[in-house]
Amino acid sequence: MNWQERWQEIGKTGQEAAQFLNLASATEKNQALARMGAALVQNTSCILEENEKDMALGREKGLPGPLLDRLMLNEKRIQEMADGLQALINLDDPIGEVLGMQKRPNGLVIGKKRVPLGVVGMIYEARPNVTADAAGLCLKTGNAVILKGGSEAFFSNQVLTRILRQGLKESGFPEGCIQFVASRDREEVDRMIQMKEYLDVIIPRGGAGLIQHVVQHATVPVIETGVGNCHTYIDQDADPEMAVRIAVNAKTHRPGVCNAMETLLVHGEIAPLILPALQEKLEDLGVELRGCARTCTLLPGLTPAQEADWSTEYLDLILAVKVVENLDEALAHIHTYGTKHSEAIVTNHYGRAQKFLEEVDAAAVYVNASTRFTDGAQFGFGAEIGISTQKLHARGPMGLEALTTIKYIIYGSGQIRS
Amino acid sequence: MNWQERWQEIGKTGQEAAQFLNLASATEKNQALARMGAALVQNTSCILEENEKDMALGREKGLPGPLLDRLMLNEKRIQEMADGLQALINLDDPIGEVLGMQKRPNGLVIGKKRVPLGVVGMIYEARPNVTADAAGLCLKTGNAVILKGGSEAFFSNQVLTRILRQGLKESGFPEGCIQFVASRDREEVDRMIQMKEYLDVIIPRGGAGLIQHVVQHATVPVIETGVGNCHTYIDQDADPEMAVRIAVNAKTHRPGVCNAMETLLVHGEIAPLILPALQEKLEDLGVELRGCARTCTLLPGLTPAQEADWSTEYLDLILAVKVVENLDEALAHIHTYGTKHSEAIVTNHYGRAQKFLEEVDAAAVYVNASTRFTDGAQFGFGAEIGISTQKLHARGPMGLEALTTIKYIIYGSGQIRS
Repeated sequence: MNWQERWQEIGKTGQEAAQFLNLASATEKNQALARMGAALVQNTSCILEENEKDMALGREKGLPGPLLDRLMLNEKRIQEMADGLQALINLDDPIGEVLGMQKRPNGLVIGKKRVPLGVVGMIYEARPNVTADAAGLCLKTGNAVILKGGSEAFFSNQVLTRILRQGLKESGFPEGCIQFVASRDREEVDRMIQMKEYLDVIIPRGGAGLIQHVVQHATVPVIETGVGNCHTYIDQDADPEMAVRIAVNAKTHRPGVCNAMETLLVHGEIAPLILPALQEKLEDLGVELRGCARTCTLLPGLTPAQEADWSTEYLDLILAVKVVENLDEALAHIHTYGTKHSEAIVTNHYGRAQKFLEEVDAAAVYVNASTRFTDGAQFGFGAEIGISTQKLHARGPMGLEALTTIKYIIYGSGQIRS
Repeated sequence: MNWQERWQEIGKTGQEAAQFLNLASATEKNQALARMGAALVQNTSCILEENEKDMALGREKGLPGPLLDRLMLNEKRIQEMADGLQALINLDDPIGEVLGMQKRPNGLVIGKKRVPLGVVGMIYEARPNVTADAAGLCLKTGNAVILKGGSEAFFSNQVLTRILRQGLKESGFPEGCIQFVASRDREEVDRMIQMKEYLDVIIPRGGAGLIQHVVQHATVPVIETGVGNCHTYIDQDADPEMAVRIAVNAKTHRPGVCNAMETLLVHGEIAPLILPALQEKLEDLGVELRGCARTCTLLPGLTPAQEADWSTEYLDLILAVKVVENLDEALAHIHTYGTKHSEAIVTNHYGRAQKFLEEVDAAAVYVNASTRFTDGAQFGFGAEIGISTQKLHARGPMGLEALTTIKYIIYGSGQIRS
């Protein structure tokens, strides 16, 4: 079988499973999720064995520590995957809801019914927990999923998929609801993102390189996720203690994720008060500061920021700092360098808070809070398949609803158009 | 200036206009729409003069009659464009609405605010009225628009854009809100659909060739519109008179549009009753029938349908007819050949009506009505920028809401993530 035939088979299997899932009831889907979770826990030792193969290869290849940590599974992490599936059971099923049904003047009754997307393609990197999360979210929303995980997690993802499919089978669901593309071939990604006839959406999760590659080459519609060059702007009317607390949290709580702050903007009037206090706290936590000229005057000895620093998503304990004249300069900076992910202002000034909310073009715009809250669980969605940084279909954290579309259902009594 | 520089300037101009429009009030936008409409009517003679240049060239090139008709403007059609802008004034402005604002357990107040998409790119073919419609819809929803019309309407589109921009200018709006790419160069389309840094969405309207080209080559997110291989299925429990009326309307009311029926499916039990009556009416209206083997037995002398007929969107007075054993065969046929646009069943059987609504995967699924109703005005949206045949972002007729996205606005009081 050549790759075209193989992919056609994958595509058709996905579509057939999607037709089955479209008709599955919430109760049936929840039972399958429960079996999938139970299967994971029961097969813990087998999963750990396969994961150890990936870990050994990773250590051999000299993968960096944080990547090895993301790759590593243990009993607790497997239990967390099962808990994640259980959490999905407890959420309402969005499928089948009919929105805004109304009678038109000619008697047609038109409603907007929430339905699954169909076949979802997930392309992701090292973290094997994405396998269980994505499979669960897609099943709950009645979508078939085709998973293409990173080669680092090759053995882990294969065993996880096998076990999840076993749970499906025990529940009378076709195994095609969850397919895993077991190949280390990077060309497989290029094939997958061209399967427009079979896939309804591609969601890439991972580094900027992967995501840009997918966007450039896909003919299947893509939901871009992830890249976040996030700013916090400290206004002259900020509460200094709150400003420092929010900035420290946004930078250091989890520096490797997309909603972490990468550049701090500070109004010139409050900079002499804020910056020394902030420097002390951040440097204690191991953060390297890189400042604009005015920042370097206020904090002698600092590394000067280069032009590239303003557009870099460090994902690390590094922070660019810029002193600005006023809110307009801050807004212009965010407009130029921001990636429309999460942006925050710290202020007690009503008008400037509202202006910031109004004028910043981003998925999440905050007043007096850390950008770290941009997250499905924190927003109350219960689960998340990624954070959209584009404007079409879904924006910001994507929960169950983002995995649905609508169809218009129309009840007539013989109407024709005149 | 090379094309890269020129397109960067177009992109930046669009983004600046979008920032202006994001802050414009509903009243200001409505005033601009009123001026745009008035300017069209006042400049009728000048528009007709330019349109005549396109018509003369079209006649010279031997464009087919229906295309010349779509290209042609007259006083009435210009008044209709102005009326279309007036109709937009009367619709509620969707921008600024905040959906589902709620307080999270940690005190954060999170709302979902409806905002413009930003910069919209429209690529379309011969009809110059799309220029005014798209400009109006985008302005009403606070989006800047970049228009790339077909070369057949070169002079008409240029004069229309100039006049619409004059209306904008009189209202104090930047002319960059509406830009027109005045070039006959087909490469311009390929440049435009790669301007990911500046454009938020591309909406192609026109033939299947144009739309597929855009989907294949765009890096800007695309909303696909238009292609409709629509079916009507006449069930054994259909009211025969209603079935014939609906089928005749769906085929002949306006055969050249995407929501017209292209294939009729008839249950074997009712076919001997329905098909002769239908044949008589349709042939009177000039429709050519192409039948499956069973249809040809019932209607001797008919052209036999080839495999290609089942997947052809004729957009013409031709109808493919197939007799099926039961609803499942009809559903399988629609699943194989349909384009997920509009599908109808005619039946008085409750269970099969519900099954059809449930199982057909299309933007609009009808019971006992003509597929011709899939249209923004008929659905009560007041206006329409196209009919989406994809599942992401918008599906079916796209009114004002389809030209918006959301941003999360978060009011905090110092919250940090722990």
